[in-house]
Amino acid sequence: MFEVRPIGRLRTPWQTTSECPRSGRRADPPPQCRVELDPEFIDGLHSIEGYSHLILLYWLHLSTKPEMIFTPPRGSEPRGVFATRTPRRPNPIGLSVVKFDGIAAPGVLLVRYLDCVDGTPLVDIKPYLATSDAEPDANMSFQGKR
Amino acid sequence: MFEVRPIGRLRTPWQTTSECPRSGRRADPPPQCRVELDPEFIDGLHSIEGYSHLILLYWLHLSTKPEMIFTPPRGSEPRGVFATRTPRRPNPIGLSVVKFDGIAAPGVLLVRYLDCVDGTPLVDIKPYLATSDAEPDANMSFQGKR
Repeated sequence: MFEVRPIGRLRTPWQTTSECPRSGRRADPPPQCRVELDPEFIDGLHSIEGYSHLILLYWLHLSTKPEMIFTPPRGSEPRGVFATRTPRRPNPIGLSVVKFDGIAAPGVLLVRYLDCVDGTPLVDIKPYLATSDAEPDANMSFQGKR
Repeated sequence: MFEVRPIGRLRTPWQTTSECPRSGRRADPPPQCRVELDPEFIDGLHSIEGYSHLILLYWLHLSTKPEMIFTPPRGSEPRGVFATRTPRRPNPIGLSVVKFDGIAAPGVLLVRYLDCVDGTPLVDIKPYLATSDAEPDANMSFQGKR
């Protein structure tokens, strides 16, 4: 076992999981959300300003027990948990590629495209690197028609 | 604190961190690596076959104590940890977007583009969704000339 320590929290407009959108990119326009970093980690933001996009990892603290195979809400066929982005995973770590709109105050980042509940614990912030993270032609299998 | 439980391990050609390439995409050709899932999670791979790319999360178990600001090996200026992909993070979770070459045996996936040490503990497998994960025009700031 390894221990994950929250480094801050995500502030979004959604107070319950049932309010959360299916994808943070679908709202028009996607609402601006905030990343609040705990004070001891604020120095780690040094030189982050120039990136246009970030990858956020967060702990899906409200997710329920995972099932290895389940039928997604909008699906008709059973799928394996690793073939979906369901929060009900063996390790409930969420991942979002977000637009980075700048630093609003020390330790406070403005971002778009989140879809998680307000107060979700933050686990990591990574710079998005198009050279290794962007695969625009990737085949999305049964999710290709979304 | 939250607990992360390894769900398998990554098998790569590199036995020590000093042997690991800077990026798994730089080798020519990038070596094929294996993802070995523990037996109880194998059912979670159901219907994963159609994806061309996956996102792997793994625990950088050999990384040393994080520093919030440090000077990268090939850099001249100090950078914040969240502006880099260094393994020395508050939560040492690594992320790789990999090419998925298929299932070789029950619970064994073939992938390319990894750059971590052999035996690295696996934390999650997610399908890569171009609609939310691909930002080919993202500005990479000081890493833009790599």
